[in-house]
Amino acid sequence: MLRHVAYTIALFAVLLTGCSSGGGGDDTATSRAEVPIGEKDSHYLFYSGGHSGQVFVSGIPSMRDLSRIPVFAPSPGHGYGYDDESREMLGDYTWGDVHHPALSKTDGTYDGRWLFVNDNAHNRIARIDLNTFKTAEIIGPIPNASGNHGSSFVTENTEYALTATRFSVPLPKGRYAPVEDYEEEFNGIVSGIAIDEETGSMGVDWQILTPPFNWDLGSTGKGPSSGWAFWTSYNSEMASDSLEIQASQMDRDYAAFVNWEAAEDAAEDGNYTMIDGVPVIDPAEAPGVMYFVPVAKSPHGIDVTPDGRWIVAGGKLDPTAQVFDFEDVQAAIEEEDFQGEVRGIPVLNYDRVLEGAVPVGQGPLHTQYDGRGNAYTSLFIESSVAKWSLPPWTDEEKEDLSQVVTDKIDIHYNIGHLVIGGSDTREPQGDWLVAMNKIAGDRPLRTGLSKPETSQLIDISGEEMEMVAESYTSPEPHFAQILPADAIQPDQVLRQSDNDHPEAVWDPEEAGITRDGNEVTVHMIAQRSMFTPDVIEVEQGEDVTIHVTNVEQVADMIHGIGIGEHDTSIIMDPGETKTFSFSTEETGVFPFYCTNFCSALHQEMQGYIAVRPSE
Amino acid sequence: MLRHVAYTIALFAVLLTGCSSGGGGDDTATSRAEVPIGEKDSHYLFYSGGHSGQVFVSGIPSMRDLSRIPVFAPSPGHGYGYDDESREMLGDYTWGDVHHPALSKTDGTYDGRWLFVNDNAHNRIARIDLNTFKTAEIIGPIPNASGNHGSSFVTENTEYALTATRFSVPLPKGRYAPVEDYEEEFNGIVSGIAIDEETGSMGVDWQILTPPFNWDLGSTGKGPSSGWAFWTSYNSEMASDSLEIQASQMDRDYAAFVNWEAAEDAAEDGNYTMIDGVPVIDPAEAPGVMYFVPVAKSPHGIDVTPDGRWIVAGGKLDPTAQVFDFEDVQAAIEEEDFQGEVRGIPVLNYDRVLEGAVPVGQGPLHTQYDGRGNAYTSLFIESSVAKWSLPPWTDEEKEDLSQVVTDKIDIHYNIGHLVIGGSDTREPQGDWLVAMNKIAGDRPLRTGLSKPETSQLIDISGEEMEMVAESYTSPEPHFAQILPADAIQPDQVLRQSDNDHPEAVWDPEEAGITRDGNEVTVHMIAQRSMFTPDVIEVEQGEDVTIHVTNVEQVADMIHGIGIGEHDTSIIMDPGETKTFSFSTEETGVFPFYCTNFCSALHQEMQGYIAVRPSE
Repeated sequence: MLRHVAYTIALFAVLLTGCSSGGGGDDTATSRAEVPIGEKDSHYLFYSGGHSGQVFVSGIPSMRDLSRIPVFAPSPGHGYGYDDESREMLGDYTWGDVHHPALSKTDGTYDGRWLFVNDNAHNRIARIDLNTFKTAEIIGPIPNASGNHGSSFVTENTEYALTATRFSVPLPKGRYAPVEDYEEEFNGIVSGIAIDEETGSMGVDWQILTPPFNWDLGSTGKGPSSGWAFWTSYNSEMASDSLEIQASQMDRDYAAFVNWEAAEDAAEDGNYTMIDGVPVIDPAEAPGVMYFVPVAKSPHGIDVTPDGRWIVAGGKLDPTAQVFDFEDVQAAIEEEDFQGEVRGIPVLNYDRVLEGAVPVGQGPLHTQYDGRGNAYTSLFIESSVAKWSLPPWTDEEKEDLSQVVTDKIDIHYNIGHLVIGGSDTREPQGDWLVAMNKIAGDRPLRTGLSKPETSQLIDISGEEMEMVAESYTSPEPHFAQILPADAIQPDQVLRQSDNDHPEAVWDPEEAGITRDGNEVTVHMIAQRSMFTPDVIEVEQGEDVTIHVTNVEQVADMIHGIGIGEHDTSIIMDPGETKTFSFSTEETGVFPFYCTNFCSALHQEMQGYIAVRPSE
Repeated sequence: MLRHVAYTIALFAVLLTGCSSGGGGDDTATSRAEVPIGEKDSHYLFYSGGHSGQVFVSGIPSMRDLSRIPVFAPSPGHGYGYDDESREMLGDYTWGDVHHPALSKTDGTYDGRWLFVNDNAHNRIARIDLNTFKTAEIIGPIPNASGNHGSSFVTENTEYALTATRFSVPLPKGRYAPVEDYEEEFNGIVSGIAIDEETGSMGVDWQILTPPFNWDLGSTGKGPSSGWAFWTSYNSEMASDSLEIQASQMDRDYAAFVNWEAAEDAAEDGNYTMIDGVPVIDPAEAPGVMYFVPVAKSPHGIDVTPDGRWIVAGGKLDPTAQVFDFEDVQAAIEEEDFQGEVRGIPVLNYDRVLEGAVPVGQGPLHTQYDGRGNAYTSLFIESSVAKWSLPPWTDEEKEDLSQVVTDKIDIHYNIGHLVIGGSDTREPQGDWLVAMNKIAGDRPLRTGLSKPETSQLIDISGEEMEMVAESYTSPEPHFAQILPADAIQPDQVLRQSDNDHPEAVWDPEEAGITRDGNEVTVHMIAQRSMFTPDVIEVEQGEDVTIHVTNVEQVADMIHGIGIGEHDTSIIMDPGETKTFSFSTEETGVFPFYCTNFCSALHQEMQGYIAVRPSE
């Protein structure tokens, strides 16, 4: 477009360089990640928060932090884990290890209803409501499951969140066996966590017993692979100590190809053993439920293409992305083209089902898709992302698959997961790729011994990948999901008519203090800028329960209650009622106050709990 | 549009506009906040994290999140609150309410050693070590103090962190009095928290008894006001309920002007009463320790200028920034130019000490300085920042002080605090201003009922303020401190020679399991990519203590230990040893694993705790 005037091109180049580098004089393209002040980002980025127990929400393309949704750990800033309801939901644990968030789907595309996340440490799954951005449900510890890492992978119509265990233990849990008897006494488990179509509520429907391999990552099928799910494993050696050495002996580990519809049938047919209250299917006794496929070497990610035909696995210790053809998988099963079996589970003929091994580079981990026939594989050791073409390949390409690798981009370093919006759906968004890097080194400003994690935003809309932004998060995102902003319209206020808390009060006339023996019940209202009542006189030894309703119906008009020298941080979002309880063990006067800035007279929003000595 | 030669200026303008708006076509200047990929920010921004109990660290100018330092709340992502040492430091509370971070100073400028933060809820102060970015010490609950809000304000040479109480209670704490007897029975407190020059360790040296006003914000003197500290109050009415109405009756509240050197002397002279183990000075009995100065109306911020002469207070309900002249304050004290007294404490003559009330606009809260003679006041109700000139003013200006207001900039809305680097020192940095806004409304992408907080970065290097970036954080920053990046060089590794943990082991030969009765002690080493030992066989009912040393001496080579279905999340930064304990209540086999990604074989870094039934 600038071809008529020679110097215009030069000028344009100079200005563009100045522009894209943010004045730094190099050729970065950070300005493409800019969102003008006052405008909104175009996509949500939902990071797993790792051992923080949270989900981190950022905006794309600015990569700005938007929200941290507390899931498995208390969060006093959100009042999460302090009111009766959320305390009960958290149960015995104050943390969790969130690895793989999965958006709910309808017809194989994101429907914007829920986000499911796993807890690797305590074998739980949580469901976050994308209308409220709050954790709506936590189930677990899942019986018989230990190390809920290969989780949670949602099926095409959110029939299930499917999970597989990273660790094996003697079953049922609680049974002791010496670790040296690992191979004989320990087992892994695949679980079918059924999801109610209407409410999203979860339940453990059935499980499949597996050898004590360490199941790692997984994904679910669609199209031709509908009804199937796939997991890699990294310890087919069944070692129980020094895994760094012992689990890296075999050239190929096994991936599990699981027909979950067949598992459903087996459960319905009664073809199971009940263990700890769950129907557990032995795949050796239920043919067709599980097959093994060899994958080189100590594989990590396994990802199904948008069309459902190709299944790509990266081997941490093998420099290829191995592409399996699900049509060949079906044919091999049909024809019983097996190269052996392990504990009664057939091992499919590797050469039959492998379409090709693309030499993507060192340390391939995970693969994502743009919906235009391209795959993007993270290379941990090389610290780069390889872009390559999915099959079908020409005969010439098959001769030398390095030809299908069309682009590579350097990543800061040690990339783990990467994510493209909708890569696990029929319709990837195909515009942005986020690289999640495991080591920050000395790259960001120093923050002492603890380091942030780094993410990099890559524009994949063109032929060549282009890096446009770098951002940091707390420890530790593993995987993420990307959702277009217009896919959801979260509520900002809980309307009075939707507040179903039985103790909610909306009229200050109804607020007050009642007594029954030594039980003191307070119905409280929080409204700019006071609590009603704001003086609570009690006697030492009384038990106090407070039901507090934030009667505001205005977005962001959040109130909180902190009580001095009490371990209580309650937050009431607009329209919410929260219930919390404490016993008055100590005499004295304890101020309480609004913890979340609300108005010009927010400081004045306070009260006292006065505890007089018992008579 | 770019096609002909009469172009250059127009082209330049068009492209520049395109550049600065990030393609959005308006006139924002976001590109000035860009940091080219791979380059570092120029400043640290330390936000108080409010009721999150944390300190949030961002970089300026990118405003990227860098770190969240856990202080008063457990943080499983950092292993904070799970090992024995940090659990003990947290004490009885799992949260705190962090309002006002204060950097340590030498000669009235930041020395980059420590960051002090208050806990308004539980009356504590924490010290963060800026070499490790870790919480090094927490003291409190401070005796006699309730509502540690006017805190912590560090003196010129970090002699003290000075604090004043937002809430009053009957003293000593634990004593009951009816709330209706507030005026007679309740008291506030100013505390002198002495800081050891070498180690930074804190202790409550002395306190000053005050009437039950609600002390709000404060600051410390320098230069002519050296040895003094200043606090606003918002409830000189001494109301004890319905403060929204009752604490807004008087046209002027009182600020406290405290001569802390005189308080030191009074404590040394024995001019005090011991209350709950602390020498408490009654200012009516110790003349010269405390004076009151009327300030209109329900004031919030009070900020001393870099030269130490001018003290500026904003009245939430008065549209002026009131400027007091400390030279006149000294003269008024010298000459006993008092307009009355409250409980034996002299009230300085308002007209004598007030230099002028600058009509900055509606809802003035806080004022910061650029070191070039300009003040910047946040206007909560107007949602803007006013820039104005400090005295000395010309006679003409004094006639109409609206003339000294030289610029105003709109803030998204409802700005609370604002911060300029070094505003509380002799040498402000004067380049960036961060506005911390209390209400986000529907401005960022929606995150349900809970909203992020918004911050805006303003370039103040020129005559006119210019907004260059907007970012979001979790609830809820109040104030912040800004430090140039080159002011500190935090360590990235704890060197073996600096690890003074008595149970550290560095050689796998020294690692192992020892028993004494039912006490099991494990000396463990964590090193890429295994734990030594990695199988721990114990008997039900035994108590296990693990001392684990991360022997890595490489930046960012962090290891963690999570134990399945145990509430244990331990993080060992490079070179650290952590100790944690648990009892083996349940039989069974419990995997443990590295929770913080460390290497290509991180997944293999695992082990088992096998608990056999007691015999």
